[in-house]
Amino acid sequence: MKVYLTRRYRFSASHRLHSDAMSDAENVSVYGKCNNPHGHGHNYVLEVTVAGQVSDDSGMVCSREDLDRLVRSEILDHFDQQNLNTLPEFAKAVPTTENLCIAVYDILQRGMVPAHLETVRFEETMMNSFEYAGGRVIRR
Amino acid sequence: MKVYLTRRYRFSASHRLHSDAMSDAENVSVYGKCNNPHGHGHNYVLEVTVAGQVSDDSGMVCSREDLDRLVRSEILDHFDQQNLNTLPEFAKAVPTTENLCIAVYDILQRGMVPAHLETVRFEETMMNSFEYAGGRVIRR
Amino acid sequence: MKVYLTRRYRFSASHRLHSDAMSDAENVSVYGKCNNPHGHGHNYVLEVTVAGQVSDDSGMVCSREDLDRLVRSEILDHFDQQNLNTLPEFAKAVPTTENLCIAVYDILQRGMVPAHLETVRFEETMMNSFEYAGGRVIRR
Amino acid sequence: MKVYLTRRYRFSASHRLHSDAMSDAENVSVYGKCNNPHGHGHNYVLEVTVAGQVSDDSGMVCSREDLDRLVRSEILDHFDQQNLNTLPEFAKAVPTTENLCIAVYDILQRGMVPAHLETVRFEETMMNSFEYAGGRVIRR
Amino acid sequence: MKVYLTRRYRFSASHRLHSDAMSDAENVSVYGKCNNPHGHGHNYVLEVTVAGQVSDDSGMVCSREDLDRLVRSEILDHFDQQNLNTLPEFAKAVPTTENLCIAVYDILQRGMVPAHLETVRFEETMMNSFEYAGGRVIRR
Amino acid sequence: MKVYLTRRYRFSASHRLHSDAMSDAENVSVYGKCNNPHGHGHNYVLEVTVAGQVSDDSGMVCSREDLDRLVRSEILDHFDQQNLNTLPEFAKAVPTTENLCIAVYDILQRGMVPAHLETVRFEETMMNSFEYAGGRVIRR
Repeated sequence: MKVYLTRRYRFSASHRLHSDAMSDAENVSVYGKCNNPHGHGHNYVLEVTVAGQVSDDSGMVCSREDLDRLVRSEILDHFDQQNLNTLPEFAKAVPTTENLCIAVYDILQRGMVPAHLETVRFEETMMNSFEYAGGRVIRR
Repeated sequence: MKVYLTRRYRFSASHRLHSDAMSDAENVSVYGKCNNPHGHGHNYVLEVTVAGQVSDDSGMVCSREDLDRLVRSEILDHFDQQNLNTLPEFAKAVPTTENLCIAVYDILQRGMVPAHLETVRFEETMMNSFEYAGGRVIRR
Repeated sequence: MKVYLTRRYRFSASHRLHSDAMSDAENVSVYGKCNNPHGHGHNYVLEVTVAGQVSDDSGMVCSREDLDRLVRSEILDHFDQQNLNTLPEFAKAVPTTENLCIAVYDILQRGMVPAHLETVRFEETMMNSFEYAGGRVIRR
Repeated sequence: MKVYLTRRYRFSASHRLHSDAMSDAENVSVYGKCNNPHGHGHNYVLEVTVAGQVSDDSGMVCSREDLDRLVRSEILDHFDQQNLNTLPEFAKAVPTTENLCIAVYDILQRGMVPAHLETVRFEETMMNSFEYAGGRVIRR
Repeated sequence: MKVYLTRRYRFSASHRLHSDAMSDAENVSVYGKCNNPHGHGHNYVLEVTVAGQVSDDSGMVCSREDLDRLVRSEILDHFDQQNLNTLPEFAKAVPTTENLCIAVYDILQRGMVPAHLETVRFEETMMNSFEYAGGRVIRR
Repeated sequence: MKVYLTRRYRFSASHRLHSDAMSDAENVSVYGKCNNPHGHGHNYVLEVTVAGQVSDDSGMVCSREDLDRLVRSEILDHFDQQNLNTLPEFAKAVPTTENLCIAVYDILQRGMVPAHLETVRFEETMMNSFEYAGGRVIRR
């Protein structure tokens, strides 16, 4: 009787894609215009999927409020309206949406998620999305 | 050669979240404004996913018409423009979208689904969705 | 230099379409399933459009926060998660989305809209929308 | 540390659903108006999902440009603005979206996909989508 | 008290853009791949906007059923799943979405629209839309 | 016979809202988190609407390619993946979306728009949009 609940959140942030492990020419070649020194930004759509048994009493997998409170305090308050390059999560990692996905999953995993955390999914643009499920395989 | 076909349907209904297993104070605490006595409503988006081999003759997993006919007669005619609390599926269960997901899956499972029923997914609002695959695991 | 700013809001409510000015048979004929006694519901999307000069200092038509505060206190807190038929705006008027549009426009018009109120637009479903601009003509 | 990257593409094409393996009456019965002799068309939305380890250096699963170049040259240039019935992929197969899904998966599988190809998904209309993962199972 | 009601409809059709008034080379130059001899197709989204006083009795601008019946019989049954080039409306006119917009407006204008017909709007693709209001100006 | 054509474009950019005409405290009060020194960003959706007679020969208001070429060279190449604060348009003006709307309208107005330029509309986020029509009134 496992039901999957997905909540959708939105935040805006800027980033510049640049890796110290590569030369300037390599950076331009790999990241193109995303490497421009002044950065650019996105409206990120974040989907958090949790799953669990449906409670006989409440008819719910978990409280939406508890989940929202966790995401708000740990993720939205931390990333919204920020330049990702200035945040501790990206002190050593390039702020690609792949790494953002992993960072958000890890933060939530350490928090009090009110049901089993399944996946973290990001829409970076209308044409681009990323999904991460910890070390586990989502689709084979 | 298994292909997954998802059909999307829409209906509108109202509900009030209230559990007889809890006190009035607990109901307000768990459901917030969704517990208000007069109820409220949603435009539900329902996605039914079936899967199977692609027929060499028709090039299809199954007839869309057969699937639509089943969903229309068993689900849309039953739930559309209704107050969920007054329906037999919710005589004992709170009409959360978790329970709605399970109810629709069970109704379809008992019907003549023209291919293997995989999942039932509901969008309750733009920010909220639910998915159910019977007792099976969707993603790990 | 008039710029038009549109903010989008969402709320859920239920309603039953029934007019005391018509017989039961007429009600069924005019409203169909929307006349069923237990009501049904929608996720309403509300768009409020205001317009004005762009301030040289702030570069804005008006404060989004001021507009949001007005809409939240006067509209969302009032209509969200409610049964429209029980609200004073619909004591004498049928809670169609036409009348909801006019009611919201009138409430906002009486409030401190931080720029000129142009139109109020509602999406009732993905296939249905309504727009009102006071007594004025929007398009000819 | 496997991350799933999905890129979304769009193209327009026409098709007529007609199977030589069936009589004219069967064709009408199976395909309805989609069997009309002059064909009709769709804006297809194509989603390609690949997955892999995130590179420590680039922070990416793979280059979006490499993936886009492959999809553009092998898929979009081939299918966009075409009548599917006239293409070699549908010389023997009916151009249903099930078969289109398999055809696109197979073309990409033979190309230099810059990470592991997971699934190919098509939205045929707002109400209809299809997904294929080679011989593998996506959801159970 | 004029309220504007917009209903959204969908149909699929194919077309080939080719003008007998131009040489083959000009046709290719003007229409690009849309001139290819076998045609291609679209999921057209059609929005019909009507306007009028809100009835005190019914609370509505007009019956949605009357409007839907007109659009279904005069437009959807006529254009859905068709090749536009084979229809009488395009015997002499190129089936661009501009001309489709005008054709649909003119058909509706001659029918029993249950309120004042304001505009006909088409989304040809996610990136492309067209609007027509008879001889009148929509925006200045 | 005036038809309105709207083309939709997308670009990503970052900005920081800060006005030299205001004190630091006023900046925080007016712009909130949008004033944070490192900036943030958006996926901007740009809609350009032009209008004109439909040509008897081509059936079109204007060439989509001509319009796209203008928007690409004058707008997308200039703004995409940039920090708006570093661009000449915002040397003296705060890079709000109101001012971005006016800047884009003015650039297009000076270019060879292949039909009459009607409006420029921006979606800054899913919940926020802006429209500008030169000095003219769009809706009253």
